[in-house]
Amino acid sequence: MSQTAQMLETYPADLGGVDREALARCIDECFTCAQACTACADACLSEKSVADLTKCIRSNLDCADICDTTGRVLSRHTGYDATLTRATLEACATACKACGDECERHAGHHDHCRVCAESCHRCEQACRELLSTLG
Amino acid sequence: MSQTAQMLETYPADLGGVDREALARCIDECFTCAQACTACADACLSEKSVADLTKCIRSNLDCADICDTTGRVLSRHTGYDATLTRATLEACATACKACGDECERHAGHHDHCRVCAESCHRCEQACRELLSTLG
Amino acid sequence: MSQTAQMLETYPADLGGVDREALARCIDECFTCAQACTACADACLSEKSVADLTKCIRSNLDCADICDTTGRVLSRHTGYDATLTRATLEACATACKACGDECERHAGHHDHCRVCAESCHRCEQACRELLSTLG
Amino acid sequence: MSQTAQMLETYPADLGGVDREALARCIDECFTCAQACTACADACLSEKSVADLTKCIRSNLDCADICDTTGRVLSRHTGYDATLTRATLEACATACKACGDECERHAGHHDHCRVCAESCHRCEQACRELLSTLG
Repeated sequence: MSQTAQMLETYPADLGGVDREALARCIDECFTCAQACTACADACLSEKSVADLTKCIRSNLDCADICDTTGRVLSRHTGYDATLTRATLEACATACKACGDECERHAGHHDHCRVCAESCHRCEQACRELLSTLG
Repeated sequence: MSQTAQMLETYPADLGGVDREALARCIDECFTCAQACTACADACLSEKSVADLTKCIRSNLDCADICDTTGRVLSRHTGYDATLTRATLEACATACKACGDECERHAGHHDHCRVCAESCHRCEQACRELLSTLG
Repeated sequence: MSQTAQMLETYPADLGGVDREALARCIDECFTCAQACTACADACLSEKSVADLTKCIRSNLDCADICDTTGRVLSRHTGYDATLTRATLEACATACKACGDECERHAGHHDHCRVCAESCHRCEQACRELLSTLG
Repeated sequence: MSQTAQMLETYPADLGGVDREALARCIDECFTCAQACTACADACLSEKSVADLTKCIRSNLDCADICDTTGRVLSRHTGYDATLTRATLEACATACKACGDECERHAGHHDHCRVCAESCHRCEQACRELLSTLG
């Protein structure tokens, strides 16, 4: 059991009808994607072709911030607000889609973009799956 | 001219047709609101009635994170993505509305909730005004 | 190989003499600890004894923010600055020690504090080990 | 009175012997500097000479994250921990000095680096002044 799943198990109050597996997976993908995007932005900065990667860097920075905030919002259950959870997940899926598509364009040339694109697409899917369970 | 407006003025590329005044105001309200929410969560923790304020604290923490991320996304212009900007602003307006309403319920008893509610509502409005200029 | 380690492998420039294993472990512990602290603060909010846990919640919130920032700083290698890396790691080890000790005081009563204390202590140790390799 | 100062005034418990003016100024400089650094990193990305500004961008990103976290830590007073406050302020002053010096090197060519360098140096000074009042 991942530590995120352990923290869910030890939450002392009712988690409502949430799909714990989908929630834990989404939290983990958010933080993993935030790390990948932070590292990919930095790796792009060290490429000789950095001038061709400025849109990619910007997408990475936005996606890192949004994934990080989404991972935090999803880690809280007290006073749950479905409307806010949904808006946050929508923004995160949008950021992951944009960054994943942009990184994918450079995946053939830069392995960090390839790894990062995969992480973005997994996170986007985890957000959409969690959204679909929220009813 | 605020420093945020100065940073907008010194951006070396085209800012498109953005309403600079609405943008600078929204960025400033986001960071101001993030500070208010962080401080309000902490002030609630030090109230004797903390057990009645747990939903408020949670709203504050979410709103602080989302405002902070929105202020960052709005501070970037390179490789502008209108879809992502809109989704982020929608999430931020949603968080500010929820937190502002919750804080307002305690505004009569706690001055930090009163000040924070005002900041949340100003930030929500700044987000909605910026959204309306994005077309 | 963890994704963090993969991102290190794909960095396109010289990583200097850094101990990649210690670095990847420290990055992963930082983000894992940030999640645990965010979730523990929220779990404390939902305890009936929340009034006795306010110092714990505050430690959790600080530790989450500092671990998150440390994980980001460590994920960047371009224009490496040893002085800044050291100051950041010192602050992170200090935050993890304080939060780990505070959570440990409640570990017998609250499982989320037990899991979080373990994560804080692992992260503190990872920071100290990375510091020791920086010379 | 700034909103940060208002939030300090409405804190319901004892603030100890803290210098409220130095504290409010430091919090405000931290968030202002985080905004400047985020915007400066993005402005650097849009310069034709971006390849010469990669160290500056990296310094900006670190400084934004550290200032943001420091502003948050300083906005909390419950369960005050002087050791952690000091370590955080030391890291922040270090980040602001590094970023301010780096931006200053480009201040003659790029107005965003000039404005950002000034903000970094004000924030560094506010951190050092607050540190000196902590005894």
